[in-house]
Amino acid sequence: MSLLIAGWVAIDEIETPFERREGSLGGSATCAALAASLFTEVRLLAAVGEDFPDEMRRALERPGIDLAGLEVVPGGETSRWGGRYHYDMNSRDTLYTVLGVNAAWEPKLPPGWEDSSGLFAAAGDPVLQQRLMAMVPGARTKMVDTIKFFIDGARDELMNAIRAADVVSINESEARELAGVPSIARAGRKLLDGGTKAVVIKLGEYGAAYISGEDYFVAPGYPLEEVVDPTGAGDAFAGGFMGYLDAVPVIDQREIRRAIIYGSTVASFCVEGFGPSRLLTLERDEVEQRYRQFRALTHFEVGD
Amino acid sequence: MSLLIAGWVAIDEIETPFERREGSLGGSATCAALAASLFTEVRLLAAVGEDFPDEMRRALERPGIDLAGLEVVPGGETSRWGGRYHYDMNSRDTLYTVLGVNAAWEPKLPPGWEDSSGLFAAAGDPVLQQRLMAMVPGARTKMVDTIKFFIDGARDELMNAIRAADVVSINESEARELAGVPSIARAGRKLLDGGTKAVVIKLGEYGAAYISGEDYFVAPGYPLEEVVDPTGAGDAFAGGFMGYLDAVPVIDQREIRRAIIYGSTVASFCVEGFGPSRLLTLERDEVEQRYRQFRALTHFEVGD
Repeated sequence: MSLLIAGWVAIDEIETPFERREGSLGGSATCAALAASLFTEVRLLAAVGEDFPDEMRRALERPGIDLAGLEVVPGGETSRWGGRYHYDMNSRDTLYTVLGVNAAWEPKLPPGWEDSSGLFAAAGDPVLQQRLMAMVPGARTKMVDTIKFFIDGARDELMNAIRAADVVSINESEARELAGVPSIARAGRKLLDGGTKAVVIKLGEYGAAYISGEDYFVAPGYPLEEVVDPTGAGDAFAGGFMGYLDAVPVIDQREIRRAIIYGSTVASFCVEGFGPSRLLTLERDEVEQRYRQFRALTHFEVGD
Repeated sequence: MSLLIAGWVAIDEIETPFERREGSLGGSATCAALAASLFTEVRLLAAVGEDFPDEMRRALERPGIDLAGLEVVPGGETSRWGGRYHYDMNSRDTLYTVLGVNAAWEPKLPPGWEDSSGLFAAAGDPVLQQRLMAMVPGARTKMVDTIKFFIDGARDELMNAIRAADVVSINESEARELAGVPSIARAGRKLLDGGTKAVVIKLGEYGAAYISGEDYFVAPGYPLEEVVDPTGAGDAFAGGFMGYLDAVPVIDQREIRRAIIYGSTVASFCVEGFGPSRLLTLERDEVEQRYRQFRALTHFEVGD
């Protein structure tokens, strides 16, 4: 099985109340690919400029990640993002976004990648997300993520992308905005009524909800004593979710619920380090151990 | 078994984005008592003025609630509270608080009530909460709740009350403020280090966390499509939690986890109506049904 992950590989500048780092590896596809590679073979589709540092490329050169789709655009500049977190780490300001090579990226699949068994299209132009989905017709699960920028600026195309996908992952506040209702449950219902097949609503430290025509699943957040940097947690969640699903023989509701917990587990590790640094050292057995802790933390009984 | 519930019985004025009602039955002890009476015998200890309307007293006259401790203070005025909710229902402004008879309330137990098997002391003066706990020495579980007002104004006495209790229930933002740390998990740990036996951190629509030396339990919120009025949800949670625990033969971690889910379940009904109106019609079998739904919504498996 091979999971195609398309999105940004970028250079970040991040400021938390406790620390500031510039020139660190970032981008939605970076975090999602590192997370997914714990579970399955990943094909990374992204563009960088000639300025992309060698040590960042080496960080991505891992067993389980195929970099044949990491295009270096001649004369191009790698995308950059700067963000600053507030005291409670739950809100942040974007300081700047430099689109660089992603301003005009036209994704092209390396030979053979059209047989990819799954697709995660990280937040990006919804027209491009639709094109990506069409490139991998045999993928069992196609998930798209989105952000406020596209809800505000490209709502119609975004709805087309969402309807073409099997799952959309979206932040809580963005789900409320997209559906135009204040309740998460009603937002989920309204998106389904509009033709969405399934929605994962990411609740940050409070967990996640999965809503489809067949199932409704809510998972609390894994309780962490220390959050170093929330950057990339949503993409790590998506990568863990899609990576786990890509590796199972049959995708059913039981496996989708497990995938939500695996995604939450990987995201909980991600925020323990700056940028994707914790994902770079994370081992599968640590994930399995925390998954079992997650179960122990949340289990309760019915009846006597 | 008889659970003593001490706190306010009040007259509320509530404004949500969709509706406004004045002169409705309110108060922490009201909501907690109605919730707890679904599970056990409740003894209500509170003070009202001579202006307390007959129809409000009749609403409280229910099998399972003993009103012998509902003192009518001669010449006194019933406490009043006014609040306005914002669009997302997660935040509110207090418009006014009229202390009335609660400005100088000296709780006195009716004869025989000193044998109460449990105590919930709703948010109030922590010196008074300590006195209440001393009045029922044989209670298996004593829980106190508190609010920002006492964290800001009576921190030392509050910490004495919290250390004397078996459990403290507290809102998330108040837990962060009381412990002086931004993470819920670390706030819980810090309170335990300071001599607290167990903490329930109420996360509003996101559920609850229970933290003690023996256990850590996190429960997501029950997904509701419509919230009519969040007033009283925290006290309904506390009442459901304490009411369930009061009725079980042996209190252990398994039962405490169940109690958290029962509390969350009753709170989810509470917010479906204005003030405590939904609690007035709620039946135990509806609670059992939603408890099972809660389990179905949150269950996931480990291993293959």
